[in-house]
Amino acid sequence: MFDRIDHVGIAVEAIDPALELYEATLEMTLVHREVVEEQGVEAVLLDLGENHIELLQPLSPDTPVGRFLERSGPGMHHIAYQVSDIESELERLRAAGIKLIDEQPRVGIRGSRVAFAHPKYTGGVLTEIVQPAEDH
Amino acid sequence: MFDRIDHVGIAVEAIDPALELYEATLEMTLVHREVVEEQGVEAVLLDLGENHIELLQPLSPDTPVGRFLERSGPGMHHIAYQVSDIESELERLRAAGIKLIDEQPRVGIRGSRVAFAHPKYTGGVLTEIVQPAEDH
Repeated sequence: MFDRIDHVGIAVEAIDPALELYEATLEMTLVHREVVEEQGVEAVLLDLGENHIELLQPLSPDTPVGRFLERSGPGMHHIAYQVSDIESELERLRAAGIKLIDEQPRVGIRGSRVAFAHPKYTGGVLTEIVQPAEDH
Repeated sequence: MFDRIDHVGIAVEAIDPALELYEATLEMTLVHREVVEEQGVEAVLLDLGENHIELLQPLSPDTPVGRFLERSGPGMHHIAYQVSDIESELERLRAAGIKLIDEQPRVGIRGSRVAFAHPKYTGGVLTEIVQPAEDH
């Protein structure tokens, strides 16, 4: 069972001008900024109630988010659902026939544990599950 | 100020097979189904904590969601933020230079009042604000 939408990931060409929109105009609170080398992005999290917006800037064109921008331009990239037990959720999804990109959780932003499902199995939506670190 | 993510709108070819994924596999609770003629869609809402997933099936190819499917295939279509006073939020966005598709709120799903901003002004993300009906 998913608890809530953890975040929507939005691909941007550059984080700083995007923060003008999300932080200054849309009045969300910037709470975290991190280079996630493994995913080839610099990312920020903005708080919005119990949800977040995650802005993703590719570290180079030859990364998944870089290729997404090349193909589709800036916009919504993925949706992430919050879970409290990522291993059991992955097992449940696998048993239900969902093909996983990550068979095992890996470390995501802000010390979370994350895994992505293959969008072919989730209606064209790149879908992530996230178990936040205990202090978040 | 936005209170939370109200929903993520996801364009689908057909709602019923998509419900197999969202209701049966992802275990979200179907709470509403409605034809929204004005927007050219049949739509369902699924509960996920205080957030929702909205599945959108176009009523015909010659509708905004029909053209989106033709252009991009099934996937994330828009993000909607929940507000408690839509008039003042629209005024605030307008004053901040965001071009609005809807200058005045119109009736959305489940008796809500909604307005869309132009994605050119919101980083390529079709962005909606929603004031739910009082009984939701």
